[in-house]
Amino acid sequence: MNMSFLQDLLSNISMRTRGRSSLFGTLDKGASSLQNLISACDTLMHRGGEASQILTAQRALEHYRRLNDEEKLAFFTLLADDYSADPAPIHAAYQLYCEHQDNAALERLFNACEPRRQDLLRRLNLCPGGTFELVHMRADLLKRLKQNPELSALDADFAHLFASWFNRGFLVLESIDWNTPAAVLEKLIRYEAVHEIGDWHDLRRRLDPEDRHCYAFFHPATGDEPLIFVEVALCRGIPGNVQKILEHGEEVPLDEVDTAVFYSISNCQAGLKGVSFGNFLIKQVVQELSRQLPQLKNFVTLSPIPGFSAWLDQQLESPQSGEEPTPDSGTQKELSRLAATYLVNAKHRSGQPLDPVARFHLGNGASLHRINFQADMSAKGLQQSKGLMVNYLYQLDRIEHNHETFSRDYSVVCTSDIRRLASQAKQPLSLEPSA
Amino acid sequence: MNMSFLQDLLSNISMRTRGRSSLFGTLDKGASSLQNLISACDTLMHRGGEASQILTAQRALEHYRRLNDEEKLAFFTLLADDYSADPAPIHAAYQLYCEHQDNAALERLFNACEPRRQDLLRRLNLCPGGTFELVHMRADLLKRLKQNPELSALDADFAHLFASWFNRGFLVLESIDWNTPAAVLEKLIRYEAVHEIGDWHDLRRRLDPEDRHCYAFFHPATGDEPLIFVEVALCRGIPGNVQKILEHGEEVPLDEVDTAVFYSISNCQAGLKGVSFGNFLIKQVVQELSRQLPQLKNFVTLSPIPGFSAWLDQQLESPQSGEEPTPDSGTQKELSRLAATYLVNAKHRSGQPLDPVARFHLGNGASLHRINFQADMSAKGLQQSKGLMVNYLYQLDRIEHNHETFSRDYSVVCTSDIRRLASQAKQPLSLEPSA
Amino acid sequence: MNMSFLQDLLSNISMRTRGRSSLFGTLDKGASSLQNLISACDTLMHRGGEASQILTAQRALEHYRRLNDEEKLAFFTLLADDYSADPAPIHAAYQLYCEHQDNAALERLFNACEPRRQDLLRRLNLCPGGTFELVHMRADLLKRLKQNPELSALDADFAHLFASWFNRGFLVLESIDWNTPAAVLEKLIRYEAVHEIGDWHDLRRRLDPEDRHCYAFFHPATGDEPLIFVEVALCRGIPGNVQKILEHGEEVPLDEVDTAVFYSISNCQAGLKGVSFGNFLIKQVVQELSRQLPQLKNFVTLSPIPGFSAWLDQQLESPQSGEEPTPDSGTQKELSRLAATYLVNAKHRSGQPLDPVARFHLGNGASLHRINFQADMSAKGLQQSKGLMVNYLYQLDRIEHNHETFSRDYSVVCTSDIRRLASQAKQPLSLEPSA
Amino acid sequence: MNMSFLQDLLSNISMRTRGRSSLFGTLDKGASSLQNLISACDTLMHRGGEASQILTAQRALEHYRRLNDEEKLAFFTLLADDYSADPAPIHAAYQLYCEHQDNAALERLFNACEPRRQDLLRRLNLCPGGTFELVHMRADLLKRLKQNPELSALDADFAHLFASWFNRGFLVLESIDWNTPAAVLEKLIRYEAVHEIGDWHDLRRRLDPEDRHCYAFFHPATGDEPLIFVEVALCRGIPGNVQKILEHGEEVPLDEVDTAVFYSISNCQAGLKGVSFGNFLIKQVVQELSRQLPQLKNFVTLSPIPGFSAWLDQQLESPQSGEEPTPDSGTQKELSRLAATYLVNAKHRSGQPLDPVARFHLGNGASLHRINFQADMSAKGLQQSKGLMVNYLYQLDRIEHNHETFSRDYSVVCTSDIRRLASQAKQPLSLEPSA
Repeated sequence: MNMSFLQDLLSNISMRTRGRSSLFGTLDKGASSLQNLISACDTLMHRGGEASQILTAQRALEHYRRLNDEEKLAFFTLLADDYSADPAPIHAAYQLYCEHQDNAALERLFNACEPRRQDLLRRLNLCPGGTFELVHMRADLLKRLKQNPELSALDADFAHLFASWFNRGFLVLESIDWNTPAAVLEKLIRYEAVHEIGDWHDLRRRLDPEDRHCYAFFHPATGDEPLIFVEVALCRGIPGNVQKILEHGEEVPLDEVDTAVFYSISNCQAGLKGVSFGNFLIKQVVQELSRQLPQLKNFVTLSPIPGFSAWLDQQLESPQSGEEPTPDSGTQKELSRLAATYLVNAKHRSGQPLDPVARFHLGNGASLHRINFQADMSAKGLQQSKGLMVNYLYQLDRIEHNHETFSRDYSVVCTSDIRRLASQAKQPLSLEPSA
Repeated sequence: MNMSFLQDLLSNISMRTRGRSSLFGTLDKGASSLQNLISACDTLMHRGGEASQILTAQRALEHYRRLNDEEKLAFFTLLADDYSADPAPIHAAYQLYCEHQDNAALERLFNACEPRRQDLLRRLNLCPGGTFELVHMRADLLKRLKQNPELSALDADFAHLFASWFNRGFLVLESIDWNTPAAVLEKLIRYEAVHEIGDWHDLRRRLDPEDRHCYAFFHPATGDEPLIFVEVALCRGIPGNVQKILEHGEEVPLDEVDTAVFYSISNCQAGLKGVSFGNFLIKQVVQELSRQLPQLKNFVTLSPIPGFSAWLDQQLESPQSGEEPTPDSGTQKELSRLAATYLVNAKHRSGQPLDPVARFHLGNGASLHRINFQADMSAKGLQQSKGLMVNYLYQLDRIEHNHETFSRDYSVVCTSDIRRLASQAKQPLSLEPSA
Repeated sequence: MNMSFLQDLLSNISMRTRGRSSLFGTLDKGASSLQNLISACDTLMHRGGEASQILTAQRALEHYRRLNDEEKLAFFTLLADDYSADPAPIHAAYQLYCEHQDNAALERLFNACEPRRQDLLRRLNLCPGGTFELVHMRADLLKRLKQNPELSALDADFAHLFASWFNRGFLVLESIDWNTPAAVLEKLIRYEAVHEIGDWHDLRRRLDPEDRHCYAFFHPATGDEPLIFVEVALCRGIPGNVQKILEHGEEVPLDEVDTAVFYSISNCQAGLKGVSFGNFLIKQVVQELSRQLPQLKNFVTLSPIPGFSAWLDQQLESPQSGEEPTPDSGTQKELSRLAATYLVNAKHRSGQPLDPVARFHLGNGASLHRINFQADMSAKGLQQSKGLMVNYLYQLDRIEHNHETFSRDYSVVCTSDIRRLASQAKQPLSLEPSA
Repeated sequence: MNMSFLQDLLSNISMRTRGRSSLFGTLDKGASSLQNLISACDTLMHRGGEASQILTAQRALEHYRRLNDEEKLAFFTLLADDYSADPAPIHAAYQLYCEHQDNAALERLFNACEPRRQDLLRRLNLCPGGTFELVHMRADLLKRLKQNPELSALDADFAHLFASWFNRGFLVLESIDWNTPAAVLEKLIRYEAVHEIGDWHDLRRRLDPEDRHCYAFFHPATGDEPLIFVEVALCRGIPGNVQKILEHGEEVPLDEVDTAVFYSISNCQAGLKGVSFGNFLIKQVVQELSRQLPQLKNFVTLSPIPGFSAWLDQQLESPQSGEEPTPDSGTQKELSRLAATYLVNAKHRSGQPLDPVARFHLGNGASLHRINFQADMSAKGLQQSKGLMVNYLYQLDRIEHNHETFSRDYSVVCTSDIRRLASQAKQPLSLEPSA
């Protein structure tokens, strides 16, 4: 494939993500956006074959953008109620299935059960830019899910389609640097979720130096909108303090680096919740960096322990089991011991580690490598993790094995040092599932 | 979105479509490719979470490529039989659905009914280049469908996924010209299905002159493989002879053209049968050309009438109704009359026009504009259509209306001249459905 | 020409402008950079044909970069003294020329007279990135020219070569917007010479809105370094105040604009002094915008009058001729009258207008269209131009004629209003050349 | 530098090389193209500053394209006669130079001696595409030079400017492969000068396989017109037969190749005669391939000996010195001995090797590595070189040393085998300079 193609792809894709001016010349001015949207959805499902579907889809999405909060909820409820599946064909198909028990009957039953919502969403996706609008629509939906659990089936339909559309095979890994268009870079500033990017100078410090890298996944249908990105620092040795990385005092010559540190990973699209990219991203970046810089020996994260403080507070408040833990100290040793205990032994009701970041990296096949004291002295770092941070280690030739070990019984793969620390807790902490 | 991105997209996508060398160093040499493939599919579905799925998918597809014909049939049969859905959960879900009749129960039933094949195909699609391999896999399947109708449910699974993956919103329209990479151009030579491209000089005549255009749809996941393409000639007036276009004697100055002729449309991927692109392509090209060349007044096809000769032969052989048709003549008038009759009145058992090309363009909202005598004097043209060709007219502001007229009762939208011709047939031809 | 090419061009050109690591493994550590540079220049001129010239040129330029101020002067002096032309061949060639008076003799004389510096500079230019380094070298030279007038012949050699290398035919016009790489955008912030760009938010206001454009000339050999750029605002009507443009309150819909305003033009490379780009840039941008936005009727500048305050002060201080001018007022009328007088009648000793911006635009074929009161109320605007600004009008069909009128006797092409204003000055101001 | 830039560069450059429609609406129809051209040149030199120079240059070049052969000669003669330099300023400047002997006087003399032709050519180069037209103009001139030696000073002016414009620093190395636009590839077919490319299938054999490479130099101002290109085959061992390479039977796996063979180098632009690219190209390609494929050990050519047959015939015809050479045989040994003698000992009157290909590669710092018998059995190969071919060896760490050895006294750097062969010639052949 050659660039000439991608030039057009470019123009095409740009169009998709640009603000589009209104399509409405002949709009029914009396009707509300909600009425117009409902009517457009109806047209899309029932009339006109493909002749004007793209235009109708475009109009429907434009109406959607104009809805207020109340109307959005009304629209979602309508989708849940009216764009379900008809019972009659389901019953008929089930009877046939019971009689024949064959693939043809299964296919018919499957088709009968598919909520019409899915077909509607596929049709809305016909128009340029539709995919991104639907991602936003699901983000709107997710915000209402807690209050309106009856919408969760609608959410399942989104999730089902997004899993197909955002299949790993369709994603494109891009390197982001100071030569990246400003229009993309400003999105990084907006989406960075771990260590806030203060301004363009801060951003430049993270992208421009030779010992800094950044990678993101993009999807051709959502253009220059990153889906997820990871920031990488190249170092001599495994670092234990994130402020030093963020301040970037002195550049390390490339021939002296031996370690790549993933110090920030941010999901960008709330609407893609549950469509997992992060594990693919890290592994592909490890491969990419290995290829470019064969001198790299270690691939590690420098990660927060976001649940540590909360867990610790809970432990201190509820000394259920005899003697209470005594972090009177705040000393490095005691804190490390407690953190090791938290990371290795504290379990979620699912049996997995309680800490979400630990869950993510251990589930990817990384191992718990080191606990660092006074590693993130920002307000957020102190508040969440008592200033501690963790290195998770990605070893390409261990990932598979680690992953399987973890999958068996969620036992945490870690160094013997950490295992020892975790077993030294002064007393058996109550490790009740807390989430 | 900016080019810098697409540069990476490029390298990524190139990789996907390049021949890849074998991944197998440590392969079980004793096992057959079929055994290896089955085992890889099993691994993909059951083990390892996402840690090694990409690699496993890659291996599975490589095994598939090594299968012989017999093994392919065996594999498809296995998918049909063993990757269906378990009856027990279906029955259970149906019971629940009958009790609750709600969205949650429907979701559960839908999920229970989804053949595991679909999930397997989604997982095979994880690896770079997977999409294109799956398109080939379905092409293999389609070839066996007639002999093995029990595989049609498997085909439905492919079709279901491809409809999502190749959604119009993901396609990219590209202009193809003499600056397009040779690697793409040679594919046009291979895929051209209507008027064969003899060699590179012939190809150049169709692409390089200012009064020639070519457009194709591409999909980011299948790289530089065109999905469908259309060849366009710019003319003064609506042309009635395709040889003149193909020979391209004299270039018409751009300021004198008023008509764009779509004289060849070719689907490229057998495996995408039933995923419709053609109507979107033509309409988008009409828009694109209108924008670029506001002087264009007419957008027409110059199309074959592929079923005409066969229909005519049938009519002559079976003079069921009194007097027989008398094409003793071969005269222009009589042939035109018969062609008009065929196009307007001869119907498929579905009620649609008997001629497949007519079905396609009329279904898109075009109208039947003119029947041309001695329009394709090639062997194929004479044999299929007695040398006749047809102009279908695409008028942007009529497409919607034409489409609806056609959708109602499949009545053919045509000029009054053609309608008159069709009514002048010497006797009421028996227009029995013949297909 | 196709993108695939430019991809390589890209990588090539990027390399040129990136910081390069040292080439010196086997360097004579004892020698100073100046000695090394002199020795490299010597090698470049005398030894080795082309076998290693690129490398030697690269080394020479790296040595140059390490020179301190004193050494630079020494190097320039050496070039002036030792890289001149030998007298003997000149005398011999002149004798021959006198005898033959033909082209062959002229060619020989021309070659004998060419300072060896020019050949040296051409050889330094062999290496990637050399062009940009030589532009910087000349910038260094220009700074020393006043103090060291004996170096002006060396400067003439640079100018002679740059006129060839930066020929208009080699320049590339680029549109700059918010999709441009940050690495280029930050250069705009640095190089903006008329209305300072405060920060990235300010920059975005000038580039991102639909009613803002920016264009720059680039040269393939200097990569992403802009040579000159112009900022454009699209407006309804001809604007008379630059703060309104810079603040960019409300975006004007594209279908309502009728005027393109060039409100800032900045030369970026001091080393290219005397190589004129500005006139080509403005005219090409006028053409480009006319093509894109046919609704544009007016192409004007909103320009400072940088010499006005100084001239006015001088007038007030030296009331040589009877009654003095009485700008007691500061009233709009009086100031406009004085500005008109300054622009139309105040002449440089060359006969051209005294004001440098007027010289530039009138020399390009623009006409003096309007004088705006309270048009630039910034400190700089008040100080330089008493807050006044001028619109120069570019009419494609008048440019040629205006230019010729101006060329004849430097008479200023302006509206009758301005001409009247200029003639209303209370007394014949002494319009002695002041520069 | 980023792609977004090069996209514009693209469109710009494409425009330059496209056929342009006439600019003449208001042309003096009575005047001949020659008269129009002369008048446009006059305008370009005398009138109008820069206001309309681009347009005038464009017109002049269009007039030039319409000249017939006779008119071209007339135009060149006019340039030679009327666009020389005025004697008076030369004499005056020379007097001053004799008095002052300083840089300022030299500069003035240099300027006075510069033929006005050079300025005219620089001005013609202002318009887009001008550079390429001027290259063609010089090609036209070169064809007439033998018959019209008085035009050689004009040719020197072209050569002087082209040396600046086509400075190595401005050239761009591109890899050419099967993904290159067809519009570029067809130029390779046209320009291939060593081993003719039969058709597109032949071309594909040379570009598409993994063990084939091709590189070309391009210049930004001449767009997609290659200046020179080299074809490379990757082999196991140093090959001695070119037909095997051209036929490309079996692809050698990349991990088994150890040798890169430059088997064809073609200059594309006759008008750039004397502007040397070839040495830079080969060395840069050696570097590029070394980087990409570290397994490569040998970089050699497989070159013709174009002067061998002619030299041999001459030797046989003129047995000046005692015994004559006896190639009665045609045996491998005798032919090799004679070829060694020719390559090592036969000298041009300049002292350099008689064979032009030997001159080129030895001058670049290559060494004469092996003489191959029955190496090019094509008609041309048999006729020119008795079927023999030569490998010249490029060793990056020897190039500099070889070049200096060769530069000293043109002694041929070769293996001891070849030296021995060359000394075994039966008698001291008369090695009179023959060219």
